[in-house]
Amino acid sequence: MISSLDYFVELLGAENILRPDSKEEKLQDYLKDMAEYPSQPLVILRPESSEQVAKILLRANETRTPVVARGAGTSLTGASSAHGWIVLDFTRMKKILKIDTVNWYAHVEAGVVLEDLNDQLKKYGFFFPPDPGSTPWCTMGGAIAENSGGMKCFRYGTVKDWVLSVRVVLADGSTVKFGEPLPKNRVGYDFVHLICGSEGTLGLITEAWVKITPLPQKTSEHKRLLVFFGDWSSAGRAIQKLRENRIQPILLEFMDRATMHSVNEAFELGVPEGEAILFIETDSKLTELLKICDECGSTGNYIAKDEADEERLYSARMLNYMGIKSLNKSVHTEDVVVPIDKLVDYLRFVEQISKKYGLMIPTGGHAGDGNVHPSILYDENSREAADRAFADICNYAIEVGGSVTGEHGVGEQKITFAEAQLRKSNGKEVLQLMRQLKKHWDPNNILNPGKFLTLEDS
Amino acid sequence: MISSLDYFVELLGAENILRPDSKEEKLQDYLKDMAEYPSQPLVILRPESSEQVAKILLRANETRTPVVARGAGTSLTGASSAHGWIVLDFTRMKKILKIDTVNWYAHVEAGVVLEDLNDQLKKYGFFFPPDPGSTPWCTMGGAIAENSGGMKCFRYGTVKDWVLSVRVVLADGSTVKFGEPLPKNRVGYDFVHLICGSEGTLGLITEAWVKITPLPQKTSEHKRLLVFFGDWSSAGRAIQKLRENRIQPILLEFMDRATMHSVNEAFELGVPEGEAILFIETDSKLTELLKICDECGSTGNYIAKDEADEERLYSARMLNYMGIKSLNKSVHTEDVVVPIDKLVDYLRFVEQISKKYGLMIPTGGHAGDGNVHPSILYDENSREAADRAFADICNYAIEVGGSVTGEHGVGEQKITFAEAQLRKSNGKEVLQLMRQLKKHWDPNNILNPGKFLTLEDS
Repeated sequence: MISSLDYFVELLGAENILRPDSKEEKLQDYLKDMAEYPSQPLVILRPESSEQVAKILLRANETRTPVVARGAGTSLTGASSAHGWIVLDFTRMKKILKIDTVNWYAHVEAGVVLEDLNDQLKKYGFFFPPDPGSTPWCTMGGAIAENSGGMKCFRYGTVKDWVLSVRVVLADGSTVKFGEPLPKNRVGYDFVHLICGSEGTLGLITEAWVKITPLPQKTSEHKRLLVFFGDWSSAGRAIQKLRENRIQPILLEFMDRATMHSVNEAFELGVPEGEAILFIETDSKLTELLKICDECGSTGNYIAKDEADEERLYSARMLNYMGIKSLNKSVHTEDVVVPIDKLVDYLRFVEQISKKYGLMIPTGGHAGDGNVHPSILYDENSREAADRAFADICNYAIEVGGSVTGEHGVGEQKITFAEAQLRKSNGKEVLQLMRQLKKHWDPNNILNPGKFLTLEDS
Repeated sequence: MISSLDYFVELLGAENILRPDSKEEKLQDYLKDMAEYPSQPLVILRPESSEQVAKILLRANETRTPVVARGAGTSLTGASSAHGWIVLDFTRMKKILKIDTVNWYAHVEAGVVLEDLNDQLKKYGFFFPPDPGSTPWCTMGGAIAENSGGMKCFRYGTVKDWVLSVRVVLADGSTVKFGEPLPKNRVGYDFVHLICGSEGTLGLITEAWVKITPLPQKTSEHKRLLVFFGDWSSAGRAIQKLRENRIQPILLEFMDRATMHSVNEAFELGVPEGEAILFIETDSKLTELLKICDECGSTGNYIAKDEADEERLYSARMLNYMGIKSLNKSVHTEDVVVPIDKLVDYLRFVEQISKKYGLMIPTGGHAGDGNVHPSILYDENSREAADRAFADICNYAIEVGGSVTGEHGVGEQKITFAEAQLRKSNGKEVLQLMRQLKKHWDPNNILNPGKFLTLEDS
């Protein structure tokens, strides 16, 4: 048997292989991800087709070499980091294979960047709604494997709600298709959704058929605005009241002063600041919405003046993570979800945790989904406190019937918490069924091992 | 060990057990389903709680006695028929446990009837959108296990798109919860969607948390209407053109003359008839929509005059199946899906099949989803021809990249076709993975055995 490296060189060509001893500058990109989880690739392979991926997995399975898929490396939980493994980089599989304006789907390779897809769809009057913060860089394969979220998911659902079908290479190198690019299909068990959010642990996505939908036409009532509150709890109460009153904005986001200030500082956007801010986009019922915010103690609002101003507000929210990262601290980004009726208590809890540990915790996110991200800032001296704060928030979410992750996923970061949640909320049998599934689909444990879930109780 | 019957009497009380030798009139209901698939219950058990269901399954698993769940028995594919098995009737588990107007979900027992839920939701200004034809009778457990569809699914998606979480009793009698009643939750593999559409072969649903959404407010442009065409192909072309032009009605249904006539005859509705009819509900772009229909050769239209008239048109479509059943023929209801760009060819194919076999095939359904149901009418003399016509249509759907079932499911009716579709469109490995899953979740094959998929190649 020739060496695996020789085999891969023959399969992909030397230009599609990067080795850890390479002097190429690009290598640096692979040694950590966006959240700075360290990564040690055995080798980086850049396949150009499903067939090549299949051959790589067949070989990896034979040689028991773990494989991690990587799109843009924008995971915030270490989902794409390697530990002496093959890194399968999908960025050369970036063909948009079809935009079907009759059946309303796009057929894409896994490495297509979300923003690139939307640029193309726009020409036909369509879009793919999910908009994770990493939209300008992140790839479809990663977005599906992570079942990513974003601001628009409040109205449109997360990535999983937009996936019709996926081409997947399984651990043994066989290539299959799950689902069909059809509006309805009742044949067989739903394996499409098993793949969504499975973080590369069951199979590697090489192509996807995703739903697309017409770009919405702006109604005369369409507005983007900021509503200001004197404290976090009041903003939380407003969200609960909006829900009770069946008000359904397009976007419903929360930002605290520290978050907005960091964005203004880093990107010179000059967006109005406030102690607690709701960023709202709506196409109806603006008066009713503002009245409810008033009743919950809002101190004022700022309605975008024109399209450029609307874009500015949207960017400010979109850049939250980058703004906070610019503060030159290390950051644990939390991603818990709480039921909306627990949102006020949750925001209060985060404030208490900030005081308790003496940590700065800028907080912002998808309030309409109960998915507001505290960003726990720390340095060398406060690392342990940050870890404790992080754990406290996860445990709080589990306690109130929430989830430890709404969109960032489990990765390396939250396995213990995820399994605690499963045991408490779903039953220990569920965790066992999940482990059993992983063992059957990937008996040699070569697909992103040790991420997402463990195989045995520790 | 006491006999199972004694055990069940002790567990449920004699009043919740019905035996095949009973003189009770109600027994007749259990001997066939809506589509007249015959059923031979060993015993009919009517549990009132998840705990009772768990104890029944534990016993059934120990004694290797198959179990089939039954809601209202409205399956059209034999999904709820028994063959000497325990019939687990969920109609006594019909509590609406919670309507949560902040988190926008309903928590219900499996036996809750869809229409009853919607009656309650209406009081709060909410609804549960999926509307299978059997909405007045069918239960949530059945609707989830069958991943049912309906007219509104064109706009809102099928049942699977509305399920957040399910309480399930597994084959071994353990009770678990899959998913969470949260807008987002990235913990663990998605087993909620594995259960949706699994037809009672992986576990029995005892409770569900389903999304609800505010009742839409009618816009000033809101209309329900019929558009008439001289032939089926023109109607099919209109649908394709509407899609290409990004027109997104609320409802987009097809009916042929025979279907509408049967409904008018059976229910004296007096709805205008035509060779091919599109039943449309829209809240925008009516003029553009009618213009496109005109360009595709529409011969006229009928716009509902008032709310009562709108209701009449909706009922006419809703009653298609009952209208056709009243023709005093036996009926094979087809449920294939084709890509929308194949709809014209498909409708032409159904017409050819009707001529080829000399069978009357009234045809109507969810044209906007590519899911138009031919109802193949037959009598004793034409049974074989009807079987052949049925097979031809299924094979046609597979051939053009469609599905043999869009919403009625596989049941006993379509296993061969479903497996042929999986082999051709998805890969033989997919069928093996599905069989493997079934064997692991239900090692003694007690859950609705022999339905949905086979365990071995025959």
